[in-house]
Amino acid sequence: MKILEQTLKEIKPSYECVKDRTKARLDSLSKPIGSLGILEDIAIKVSGITGEINNSLDKKNIIIVCADNGVVEEGVSTCPQEVTETVTYNFTKGITGVCVLSKFTGTDLTIVDMGVKNDIHSDKVINKKISYSTKNMTKEPAMTREQAIKAIENGIEIVDDLVSKGCKILGTGEMGIGNTTTSAAVLSVLSGIDVDKVTGKGSGLTEEQLEHKKEVIRKAIEVNKPNKEDIIDVLSKVGGYDIAGLCGAFLGAAKNRVPIVIDGFIASAAALCAQRLNKYCREFMFPSHLSAEPGAVYMMNELNLEPILNLKMRLGEGSGCPLAFNIMEAALYSMKNMVTFEEARICRDDYIDIRK
Amino acid sequence: MKILEQTLKEIKPSYECVKDRTKARLDSLSKPIGSLGILEDIAIKVSGITGEINNSLDKKNIIIVCADNGVVEEGVSTCPQEVTETVTYNFTKGITGVCVLSKFTGTDLTIVDMGVKNDIHSDKVINKKISYSTKNMTKEPAMTREQAIKAIENGIEIVDDLVSKGCKILGTGEMGIGNTTTSAAVLSVLSGIDVDKVTGKGSGLTEEQLEHKKEVIRKAIEVNKPNKEDIIDVLSKVGGYDIAGLCGAFLGAAKNRVPIVIDGFIASAAALCAQRLNKYCREFMFPSHLSAEPGAVYMMNELNLEPILNLKMRLGEGSGCPLAFNIMEAALYSMKNMVTFEEARICRDDYIDIRK
Repeated sequence: MKILEQTLKEIKPSYECVKDRTKARLDSLSKPIGSLGILEDIAIKVSGITGEINNSLDKKNIIIVCADNGVVEEGVSTCPQEVTETVTYNFTKGITGVCVLSKFTGTDLTIVDMGVKNDIHSDKVINKKISYSTKNMTKEPAMTREQAIKAIENGIEIVDDLVSKGCKILGTGEMGIGNTTTSAAVLSVLSGIDVDKVTGKGSGLTEEQLEHKKEVIRKAIEVNKPNKEDIIDVLSKVGGYDIAGLCGAFLGAAKNRVPIVIDGFIASAAALCAQRLNKYCREFMFPSHLSAEPGAVYMMNELNLEPILNLKMRLGEGSGCPLAFNIMEAALYSMKNMVTFEEARICRDDYIDIRK
Repeated sequence: MKILEQTLKEIKPSYECVKDRTKARLDSLSKPIGSLGILEDIAIKVSGITGEINNSLDKKNIIIVCADNGVVEEGVSTCPQEVTETVTYNFTKGITGVCVLSKFTGTDLTIVDMGVKNDIHSDKVINKKISYSTKNMTKEPAMTREQAIKAIENGIEIVDDLVSKGCKILGTGEMGIGNTTTSAAVLSVLSGIDVDKVTGKGSGLTEEQLEHKKEVIRKAIEVNKPNKEDIIDVLSKVGGYDIAGLCGAFLGAAKNRVPIVIDGFIASAAALCAQRLNKYCREFMFPSHLSAEPGAVYMMNELNLEPILNLKMRLGEGSGCPLAFNIMEAALYSMKNMVTFEEARICRDDYIDIRK
């Protein structure tokens, strides 16, 4: 609890004065004001995080939290629970979607076992296992309060370690069969939005199976009665180790003042928890793309953030992070390398309408 | 005329059978079917262009056509005409937005003078000047029919040359004060959509100036009476050398079977002309992002294409191309480097619902 308490205390807001100076610099560059669109927003936001006008993101890392969910007993996924373990191993082999896209963009991966059902035998996976899967949340809390805190603190520690090794930007991914169920439950409780609206059928569930999934979520909330004002209570009762671990990663990123990319529905649930624990967290977050889950839009609304990309991807794993990193790097590179109006020998007033 | 005629004859549709094989390959990769979203669409479309299942875009080039427009006499831009020349020189110095983003992504630029008002003295600019600016289209046709054809053929020849040097993907950019006016005119005539809807005020025009711009476009159409069934007629009467030149680039890309990125409103007008000249052209086109011009949406509808990015950029110059190239490369890289279900030791039926 000490690590979490300390972290929450150390999170400070963006440097507004640096953001202003970055905006002034952007406006002095030889282009119509604001014409780099979201690239400008990114450069300004990153400068508010680091306190520097110019930034680079040359050391990039995606934290992938792997964990099983007891609720899969209820048949919320057509996918066997063992796939969590198989894919965890596949991350170590560099053969999944996020691995390939990360290689393309020069991004490292940090694969973490926070609660896979079986032991993971690989020195490429960080062992932060809290238990062998969470419990079935329709019958009891998914985890104890202590376990939830431990998962959050694990996430914070992982970020501390990566930042100490020079990481300049982080991404978030996960692997855990059943985790859209827990994420929808967390979103519904925290936002007060009906389970119906935030629960999706994904690529596999039939209409009937979707109805069952909603029933399961409603039951879990009914049985556990999580207190929406107490984030740890919500996380422990209807969350998962992946959501809690990534929540810790968001807190750790904010504390360490490094930008962090939210990728997908599960990471969004984690981001929302972090944001509720400390209101400044969102100033460090960059959503990659809009997840195809129906709850994703509500999540972005709750966070008041807008995704950078809309590539209609729904692979999970944090696979949108490398592409978002790339756009962010392009933004910072432009900021650093474009010349001013003066250097370009154009009067700003002349240029204002060039591209109409 | 011979080059144009020959080119139009040589353009053939996509290889549908190769697209089917690429889709089958994508569906065999260890991920939920279709979960790479637009990345999969890109890989499939590129394979239909080249006839190869796996492709790389390692040699990238953006063609930037620079030309002046006589219609600026009418006060359709708050920007002095000389800026066309200044920015043309700035491209050669590597200091504009598109230069910086191109450097970031390893993209080369081909800067072409197709009709800048003054002579351009730089060995970094290809001299394909047809005349010193077009004429004022509110008084007479912007150019002769022969000049329009020459501009198109210039574009085709530039692409032929780049492809012969190993270019694997092309982008389109432009510089020419007044060219949203000509582009809106071309779009309005070709689509039949009212001038009101397709004309934008950009970053500089006031409400009053916008009304004037619309009046100018209406007058140009009224005076010249372009025949919407005759694309060359439309281009010559209310177009510009940049639009005609880029139209040629789109035709050349289709003939040479290389993918080409549409960037911005002016390039979209050129793409629409190319598409009307040969219906297969759109199969070779990839719009980068949606331009902020109100006509941009209509343009995409006419072309039946969807932009890859929505970064709210409105810099012009072809500056969206490098970012689109990057996403396209990521798509092809994933296609080539992800493993199949068999290699990942996951049963496809199991996996279908993993990420819901």
